[in-house]
Amino acid sequence: MKSMWLSLAAAAIASLIFAKMLAARSDADTGAASPIFGVTIPEGYRQWQMIAPSQLGEPFDELRAILGNDMAIKAYGGKTLPFPDGTVLAKLAWKRIPASDFPAAIAPGVATSIQFMVKDSKGYAATGGWGFGKFVDGKPADEAEHRACFACHEAHVKAHDFVFTRFAP
Amino acid sequence: MKSMWLSLAAAAIASLIFAKMLAARSDADTGAASPIFGVTIPEGYRQWQMIAPSQLGEPFDELRAILGNDMAIKAYGGKTLPFPDGTVLAKLAWKRIPASDFPAAIAPGVATSIQFMVKDSKGYAATGGWGFGKFVDGKPADEAEHRACFACHEAHVKAHDFVFTRFAP
Repeated sequence: MKSMWLSLAAAAIASLIFAKMLAARSDADTGAASPIFGVTIPEGYRQWQMIAPSQLGEPFDELRAILGNDMAIKAYGGKTLPFPDGTVLAKLAWKRIPASDFPAAIAPGVATSIQFMVKDSKGYAATGGWGFGKFVDGKPADEAEHRACFACHEAHVKAHDFVFTRFAP
Repeated sequence: MKSMWLSLAAAAIASLIFAKMLAARSDADTGAASPIFGVTIPEGYRQWQMIAPSQLGEPFDELRAILGNDMAIKAYGGKTLPFPDGTVLAKLAWKRIPASDFPAAIAPGVATSIQFMVKDSKGYAATGGWGFGKFVDGKPADEAEHRACFACHEAHVKAHDFVFTRFAP
């Protein structure tokens, strides 16, 4: 009898560990790092505070939301530029679709990509202190695409520490 | 000497209390409750987790973001319907404007309104268990506007516990 309970307890613990492994894998595939920058998907990013929503036209046709870790939110709150090392910004993007229950509204459809900017002023000194990572279905985009990130940020928003998004009140 | 320190301490405590009052006022004008429902702006709602962004066409022409308190997020995670009492959803809305540094993108402009749905199945039994509050510049919209809330939610999303927004992954 006692050994049955022990087996049951062991099985329960094993299934809990397995569930946790699965949860971790779906949330952050730590094995997949972006080319050039080695940025990985940070765990728990979906729970981060929202900085602002946005929208991009054709050919993307996406609704987007930019989230930030605690350091990012603090920097926005204090209007601190440049953003301090440790800042991470996440951009979540979805195809724009008419809302199923109210087609006059546009809602997020299929998730298209997740993108991150990680501040490390020494590690990424050649790209304004920012490392970039773009992921589609959890897998990093190719090197050519990552090479384009900083060029565009540098061309448009150098004066805002290479960050496009402003905090939406 | 001792009484000087006591006065200083009292002054410090008073100024702390005053600062806290000011902070509370700017974050949530607890004096302003919505007509019919008596819903007020919940403190700290801007820090809540994002459920999804959305967009609404003319005449609104708005970018929106729907946030939820912990209970809301937990209910979405567990696909729990109806939402439990204590659930609060916040809808933040801004005019759509071309992003200043990259006009091909649309960014949040002026904040137009903040709207809340508060679940209290007994208190708001006549309106599906939901109380509504819409605020413009911190002040509640009028009674006619609040009377329209539930009619629209009932017409379109009764099967989803009267809530339009789905969680965006």
